[in-house]
Amino acid sequence: MTHNDCIFCSIAAGDLPCAKVYEDASVIGFLDIGPINEGHTLLVPKSHYERLDECPAEDLAAVMACVGGVARAIVAAVDADGYNLLCNTGRVAGQAVGHVHFHVIPRHKADGVFARWPAGKYAAGRAEEIAAKIREKL
Amino acid sequence: MTHNDCIFCSIAAGDLPCAKVYEDASVIGFLDIGPINEGHTLLVPKSHYERLDECPAEDLAAVMACVGGVARAIVAAVDADGYNLLCNTGRVAGQAVGHVHFHVIPRHKADGVFARWPAGKYAAGRAEEIAAKIREKL
Repeated sequence: MTHNDCIFCSIAAGDLPCAKVYEDASVIGFLDIGPINEGHTLLVPKSHYERLDECPAEDLAAVMACVGGVARAIVAAVDADGYNLLCNTGRVAGQAVGHVHFHVIPRHKADGVFARWPAGKYAAGRAEEIAAKIREKL
Repeated sequence: MTHNDCIFCSIAAGDLPCAKVYEDASVIGFLDIGPINEGHTLLVPKSHYERLDECPAEDLAAVMACVGGVARAIVAAVDADGYNLLCNTGRVAGQAVGHVHFHVIPRHKADGVFARWPAGKYAAGRAEEIAAKIREKL
């Protein structure tokens, strides 16, 4: 997907409308049109990169510079009890738009969102084996 | 929770063992002991802050400076197809340890993780109303 046919680039450029909650030189924040809860916001680096691991650290740092304030404002606005910050990378992980974006999802008691957290367990020695494999790839 | 009784502070200090995958001056990365998929890693700012919105931007930027490389290494090590970056803030959002941490969860086709994504829809005018409320709180 190029810049030209990217929906988030068009929103960042002001060519498509959005319910904007935040904007600075590098980041735009607007409501997800398919909210998991009311106030569910997307924080998007304006520069086009498809994947989190392709996005320069300074663009990500710009998101991190505003995420706390935006999250607090969302929590206050919708009277939430907490929130998830979520960046899905790759279609298999739920990334639906090929321009890196961070979901800020306000959460309420017993809202049932992400209720399934299928934690597993490593057999003896397996965690160290996997960690070594990751370190090798770094 | 103070620094002294924080399990992640103890891991960062080297006082508790972990299956370490990454470390620099500000960040430590180790395998989650209850992995959603093998290779599920926690990236943790070494300084103790409970919530994402309490954590200084520079500590978060330090996480962002390494997350792409760590995520790629995890994907390569476990032959994943993508990953989720997730920071749960507040007990209601699934935060189980009161020291800010980012999950990097490698994902495989049809692994069934986070399969439920209960997207809603705003009634006409409601999104702009909510966005205005958030902007007021910023």
